[in-house]
Amino acid sequence: MFGRFRSLDENSDMEVDFEGDVFDGIVYPAPEYQHLDDEYALSSLLILSPVLPSKIICVGLNYSDHARELNMPVPKNPILFLKPPTALLPHNGCIVYPGASKQVEYEAELAVIIGKDGKNISSEDSDSYIAGFSCFNDVTARDLQKEDGQWTRAKSFDTFAPLGPFIVTPEELEQQNLNPENLNIQTRITDRDGNIRVCQNSNTAELIFKIPKLIAFISNIMTLKKGDVIATGTPPGVGQLLPGETVDVEIEGIGILSNTVIEDF
Amino acid sequence: MFGRFRSLDENSDMEVDFEGDVFDGIVYPAPEYQHLDDEYALSSLLILSPVLPSKIICVGLNYSDHARELNMPVPKNPILFLKPPTALLPHNGCIVYPGASKQVEYEAELAVIIGKDGKNISSEDSDSYIAGFSCFNDVTARDLQKEDGQWTRAKSFDTFAPLGPFIVTPEELEQQNLNPENLNIQTRITDRDGNIRVCQNSNTAELIFKIPKLIAFISNIMTLKKGDVIATGTPPGVGQLLPGETVDVEIEGIGILSNTVIEDF
Repeated sequence: MFGRFRSLDENSDMEVDFEGDVFDGIVYPAPEYQHLDDEYALSSLLILSPVLPSKIICVGLNYSDHARELNMPVPKNPILFLKPPTALLPHNGCIVYPGASKQVEYEAELAVIIGKDGKNISSEDSDSYIAGFSCFNDVTARDLQKEDGQWTRAKSFDTFAPLGPFIVTPEELEQQNLNPENLNIQTRITDRDGNIRVCQNSNTAELIFKIPKLIAFISNIMTLKKGDVIATGTPPGVGQLLPGETVDVEIEGIGILSNTVIEDF
Repeated sequence: MFGRFRSLDENSDMEVDFEGDVFDGIVYPAPEYQHLDDEYALSSLLILSPVLPSKIICVGLNYSDHARELNMPVPKNPILFLKPPTALLPHNGCIVYPGASKQVEYEAELAVIIGKDGKNISSEDSDSYIAGFSCFNDVTARDLQKEDGQWTRAKSFDTFAPLGPFIVTPEELEQQNLNPENLNIQTRITDRDGNIRVCQNSNTAELIFKIPKLIAFISNIMTLKKGDVIATGTPPGVGQLLPGETVDVEIEGIGILSNTVIEDF
């Protein structure tokens, strides 16, 4: 498991990669930061986005239960779109509701983090290009998505790409006897009165295009760079977010990504 | 005028920013490379993409003559899409015709290069965020664009974002008594037999959404970073490219971006 953190000590602007079992509350600087202390309490650190991708590649309609819900045919190929790196938001960061939209929605997704550069990767080789997995929220201004036809504006606002909290490696998933293509994925909203409701509740087993196919398909188009993020699509149950609400994306064995919505002032 | 170059001396892997009137055949390393020689002959250098943007933001239908040609209404807002940085191609680089497409097309565009980070930039302030202008070719697999509905796959193949050859500053345009919103823009194709035909021939005066409006609109959605590229849309006359052909995008006062198409082996 690894991630990126900044010291909460205001006299420090340390911003480094950490490793370790962060759920134990203790993290260790990555080997390239040998000059730092051996371990840090997680509570002394601000969680940053776990990677700084050069691109975030997202997949449209990719859950068979979602396709059934919409009564839509399964697409022939994955439908791709990009979110800009400026949209990234770490765990606990605030999603800013833009003035241009009246309908901002969550979309819980499993994110695949690329571990090394690759082009024309075969499905068979795809595993060796995966650094790990994280939780992703493909926040979308649904009204602008419908207005434009093209999805880019609706999905590109700053803070519209929550990612985190950390990256869990394929080995760590395996140690939990988990398979990335059989993980429960759930979205929960906590409203302004503190009431919690489950909004999306599915399993990555429902993915139409599986992870090896996605890596092969995408890398046949564009070179994948170390740190790039592939967001694998969202299950049924998307819906609206309101200012003051907190949205949690939880993926089994991977973690809980939590973000609160605020208004654009 | 500035750009990026690599030494053709095979004992050197120098890759630096250069300045100077490159049309005179002599360029000067940018001030941060004081340890290098004072000047270089352009013929001793390989031209690289003039910037390394964190994002390439493109605008759909944005020429009034193109809208008339298609008999389409003028859009209410700019339609945006992103091309990944991995699609960048320098002047003289080869556009690789992907096996997945049977209809690759050119789209000549004026590129605006952002000079400093900015968010929520007003139209009035937009000039101070412009580092300069360059030529851009929004290469598109038209068949895949139609098949997907979303434009990302069709426009994201490696080599599908030729940019260059250099960046001309607003001051340099002004010295030529030119205005970025009144520049002739032309595409010419040289076929395998050496015949040259003019394919697109318009003027940036036809832009529906002008540069200040584009910078304001886009920066209201996503933070613009230094080096980011805004491709302002293409005039009428788009058409097909074949392997072996060379496509030149020429913009008055800015330069000629030339790229040859090769097959994907």
